[in-house]
Amino acid sequence: MIDMLAMGRQVLASQAFSQLLGTELTAFHDDGVELRLPLHDKLKQQNGFAHGGVLSYLADNALTFAGGTRLGVAVLTAEYKINYLRPAVGTHLIARASVVYAGKTTATCRCDVFGVSEDGIEKLCATAQGTIAKAG
Amino acid sequence: MIDMLAMGRQVLASQAFSQLLGTELTAFHDDGVELRLPLHDKLKQQNGFAHGGVLSYLADNALTFAGGTRLGVAVLTAEYKINYLRPAVGTHLIARASVVYAGKTTATCRCDVFGVSEDGIEKLCATAQGTIAKAG
Amino acid sequence: MIDMLAMGRQVLASQAFSQLLGTELTAFHDDGVELRLPLHDKLKQQNGFAHGGVLSYLADNALTFAGGTRLGVAVLTAEYKINYLRPAVGTHLIARASVVYAGKTTATCRCDVFGVSEDGIEKLCATAQGTIAKAG
Amino acid sequence: MIDMLAMGRQVLASQAFSQLLGTELTAFHDDGVELRLPLHDKLKQQNGFAHGGVLSYLADNALTFAGGTRLGVAVLTAEYKINYLRPAVGTHLIARASVVYAGKTTATCRCDVFGVSEDGIEKLCATAQGTIAKAG
Repeated sequence: MIDMLAMGRQVLASQAFSQLLGTELTAFHDDGVELRLPLHDKLKQQNGFAHGGVLSYLADNALTFAGGTRLGVAVLTAEYKINYLRPAVGTHLIARASVVYAGKTTATCRCDVFGVSEDGIEKLCATAQGTIAKAG
Repeated sequence: MIDMLAMGRQVLASQAFSQLLGTELTAFHDDGVELRLPLHDKLKQQNGFAHGGVLSYLADNALTFAGGTRLGVAVLTAEYKINYLRPAVGTHLIARASVVYAGKTTATCRCDVFGVSEDGIEKLCATAQGTIAKAG
Repeated sequence: MIDMLAMGRQVLASQAFSQLLGTELTAFHDDGVELRLPLHDKLKQQNGFAHGGVLSYLADNALTFAGGTRLGVAVLTAEYKINYLRPAVGTHLIARASVVYAGKTTATCRCDVFGVSEDGIEKLCATAQGTIAKAG
Repeated sequence: MIDMLAMGRQVLASQAFSQLLGTELTAFHDDGVELRLPLHDKLKQQNGFAHGGVLSYLADNALTFAGGTRLGVAVLTAEYKINYLRPAVGTHLIARASVVYAGKTTATCRCDVFGVSEDGIEKLCATAQGTIAKAG
């Protein structure tokens, strides 16, 4: 039996940029994926919120991992769009993504990004939709 | 006379995340903006290319600065979409953004992101379109 | 008590284009909206499927109505993106939209568009996400 | 020598929905495509402007034709996003689309949609970006 979570964590560990930011993979199975990112000061913009680019990075990566649950690990994000809903604050961010529809070579996925407070209250701060494609 | 470039650089300097990545503002005027980011190893993914999240961050930030040329510095990205076109390689990345249409409170902007080789050859690797809104 | 569905149908009846196509509003309440469109031949493209423009129209309109449940009837679509998933076939199309997040002047909404067969089997054929804004 | 414009017009003529609306193909070559649509009353919404769904249809179709200049006529729109900029008024609409980047099986394209007054003044009313894919 394949340990999907371990395999996903190996992919994440091989992304230098994800290591720089501190991203963790906390779920990776057929029903979806979850990435977790402690919101330390270096990830913020001028008003003390998570930088939009951090939310984008997290959404993009979660979408790719979601696509990977159907298309295999050799996947990349072809395109996506993101709507920012609220300033992202909290002790960490969580991105949850799942597959809306998968064909043979592409999958359309959705992702919600939450800011999570110290006591675990989640607030939706961005939502994304995009296309993941098999690499090569 | 206002030195727009100096003002823009001050905003960028106040973004901890942009400092972490090493982004520079190289143009900021009515015709558009340009961000430059040396492509060091920490910004890469598992295949040695710039991580998609880095391209997204750069596009998002360039779109916001472009909107800021019309709406003032207190702006934020409301939403955007990005298409990844080619793996991003080179010594640095450049993002160029401009305003397509500006109303009173929002501006629709476009951005192209290029990977630039040591000898200055630019290859388009992503293109984005989005809405910038006045904050507050 | 306001009859929301009747009010929504009045708006739809005042859209000449929606009348040309034959769109019906079948649900319009706080939890979301549903538009229904009989798939007659004039709505098709060269391969016998619903034209993508018809799916887009339906998604766009459903997103707007969804935003209207929170922002009032004087709303317009500011932007949206749509992913086409499958060829749309069947006796009619159904678009279901709901609000993901609503602020004071804008709402971010999602919409799924289904092709429905004679015996009521629904197949997801497009999914959309966009921003609805108060008019004026 | 292939008459691309004639070929494109044949495709458009085979789209029942494009015939219902009255769309004409006025340019179809390697540098881009142009669609033209007389803005008669049946294409409007409740405020007398072109219905957003009409702009979307036109952008979607122009994006597809643009992709077709590189990928061949058997293409479809995989996804796109559109920003509405101004109410669309005038005697007709024009959509101009071109290819930003083309790979072997997909092309990323852009489209601007204009409302054109009786005396030929064009006003940009929507802008779109999307992915066209080879069919099959």
